[in-house]
Amino acid sequence: MQSKSISIAVIKRLPRYYRYLGELLAHDVVRISSKELSEKMGVTASQIRQDLNNFGGFGQQGYGYQVEYLYTEIGKILGLDKKNNLIILGAGNLGMALTNSTGLQKRGFEVIGIFDINPEVVGTSVRGIPVMHVNELEQFIKTHQVDMAALTVPKAVAPTLAADIVKWGVKAIWNFAPTDLQLPPDVVQENVHLTESLMRLSYKKKAAEEEKK
Amino acid sequence: MQSKSISIAVIKRLPRYYRYLGELLAHDVVRISSKELSEKMGVTASQIRQDLNNFGGFGQQGYGYQVEYLYTEIGKILGLDKKNNLIILGAGNLGMALTNSTGLQKRGFEVIGIFDINPEVVGTSVRGIPVMHVNELEQFIKTHQVDMAALTVPKAVAPTLAADIVKWGVKAIWNFAPTDLQLPPDVVQENVHLTESLMRLSYKKKAAEEEKK
Repeated sequence: MQSKSISIAVIKRLPRYYRYLGELLAHDVVRISSKELSEKMGVTASQIRQDLNNFGGFGQQGYGYQVEYLYTEIGKILGLDKKNNLIILGAGNLGMALTNSTGLQKRGFEVIGIFDINPEVVGTSVRGIPVMHVNELEQFIKTHQVDMAALTVPKAVAPTLAADIVKWGVKAIWNFAPTDLQLPPDVVQENVHLTESLMRLSYKKKAAEEEKK
Repeated sequence: MQSKSISIAVIKRLPRYYRYLGELLAHDVVRISSKELSEKMGVTASQIRQDLNNFGGFGQQGYGYQVEYLYTEIGKILGLDKKNNLIILGAGNLGMALTNSTGLQKRGFEVIGIFDINPEVVGTSVRGIPVMHVNELEQFIKTHQVDMAALTVPKAVAPTLAADIVKWGVKAIWNFAPTDLQLPPDVVQENVHLTESLMRLSYKKKAAEEEKK
């Protein structure tokens, strides 16, 4: 699998394919044509064929795609063929939303620890997952398989905390703080900037209103 | 302002410019060159000049950009020069995280109502904002200026609820449910698919590991 040569644009679309294929699978659909998939997903059939051809030979002329096979292969590409252990930094509402997300659990992302500094929550547990003090974070990372860390802490502390967990061995950060983290080249990050997302919605709304005038 | 002719890619970057300019403004920076802004943001200076030239004449050769002016103009393009009223559908952890987000409040997004069906939360209030029953949603939308609705409800109910609020007059939906909503052409949406975001992080991590081999 030549995953390195796949373009960023295709990668961005893969999770969506994975979601649709998972839904088809749940409905016991065995195979699907690019045309049918195209109608469901609202993208062109040629886009689908082009995207999925990146992974070589998944489709068959006049037969369509084997849903389960394609789902499994895309899952492998996305690293979902194994369990991924996640820690949550920040036990606020956002941290709790991630901890309780059934969507994440279904994809094999397992929250193994939650960290905060608030004495009211440290020592409690959520779905059996302990909420620990940030003081315990170094020891925890060094003694557990931590695949990813979700950063749901205030912007002011995010850069320092990110630098610490990277120093202790974390290689992947899911960053919700409204700041861009400067990380070493071997550490990957994915940002979720909620305020920026809402600004884009605001822009689209304004643009749609202006178009109507 | 010819906002209609601006490419989607530029629009996607605008909120980030807005964030950086806001930070500069908070530090009393009056003007900045494209080179300095480029170093801060980690994009090329020519990209910045090209992006900001879309809005015409904001920069001056050898002088740089006037931070406050540029911040204000981009704010107008993004529709942030007025207050935007937001309702939150779903009073779970995610809905509460959005309700309590100071980032949204600072940008003029004001939560004016929260809706749920859970009898334990209906009738309570958060920061003075009432949590109402979904039964009251139609009446509320018809009697209030609702600019946007954040959909933080389970996937199974999201499409029906979205269709209802659109029927009652909502024109912009911030969708957190892991499904693509089919909406009329005059209704805009912005999706935040958290599980897909984490899958992208998983892909990046896997790709980085393979590169090291």
